[in-house]
Amino acid sequence: METTVSKEIFEVITPSELLHHFQGHRNLTRRVIETFPEDALFNHRIGGMRTFAEMLMELLGIAAPGIKEIATGKIEPLIEHVEHKNKKANLLQLWDEATDSINHYWAQIKPEQFRKQIKIFGQYEGTVWSSIFYFIDNEIHHRGQGYVYLRSLGIEPPAFYER
Amino acid sequence: METTVSKEIFEVITPSELLHHFQGHRNLTRRVIETFPEDALFNHRIGGMRTFAEMLMELLGIAAPGIKEIATGKIEPLIEHVEHKNKKANLLQLWDEATDSINHYWAQIKPEQFRKQIKIFGQYEGTVWSSIFYFIDNEIHHRGQGYVYLRSLGIEPPAFYER
Repeated sequence: METTVSKEIFEVITPSELLHHFQGHRNLTRRVIETFPEDALFNHRIGGMRTFAEMLMELLGIAAPGIKEIATGKIEPLIEHVEHKNKKANLLQLWDEATDSINHYWAQIKPEQFRKQIKIFGQYEGTVWSSIFYFIDNEIHHRGQGYVYLRSLGIEPPAFYER
Repeated sequence: METTVSKEIFEVITPSELLHHFQGHRNLTRRVIETFPEDALFNHRIGGMRTFAEMLMELLGIAAPGIKEIATGKIEPLIEHVEHKNKKANLLQLWDEATDSINHYWAQIKPEQFRKQIKIFGQYEGTVWSSIFYFIDNEIHHRGQGYVYLRSLGIEPPAFYER
């Protein structure tokens, strides 16, 4: 008689669900970019904070390069500036290229990698999952700030719950 | 000879890690509340948005009641107002009571529940995990707005990456 003892593991979230969650947030951020008037995107600021375009450059520097680094293991420094010539269309194009890059490299991340320790951008210690959660949380944080910028301009932002 | 075939499942994040992540964010929000001047917490607003205290009442209405509902299965309506008498100390006390309540009811959530479909507060369809992610994301979103409120008052908020 066989006896098979195996600890049953119930997943909280699968890798593909986490990708979908990430891209859902990135899709909402894209709509926030679209909602900004072109000049306000590059000029408007509150309390000495960065413009929304400057925050977006941080997000662009993190998301696709971070997922690529997790997938390939090749460490690159964090670069928080991308050339966009103060054009919303250029930022949107960079955003869409990042979307494709994230999908491409996500497919190369092995399921057993998510719990591994890494030092993302050669600087930040954590697990793969905690690093990806940080990417998402940081985007939500800055996008929430973009919502205040829009409201201060009398513009209604996209609904938060629509991804 | 025994043959044991079992699909190997690698978790992205465990339930206890998700609780720790949630409470880490809640701890940061608590420090943002502490950083607000008492009057600004209840009076300051930008672009016709709610005060930070009003946003906190939404967060208090969601987090602990939401986790209790997931744990017990007993559906209650969403209540976005709690009595606080415009006192920061009362909001902080409510925040701490919510922290304890979340820990208490989280321990009653079964690992297999996270992927189950629910209709939280009798209104919002999703899985248990997606509902909890929404609670966290919504808190990050509004806390990011609180950061702008603080900056507009010339006050430096706590570091985002410190939980």
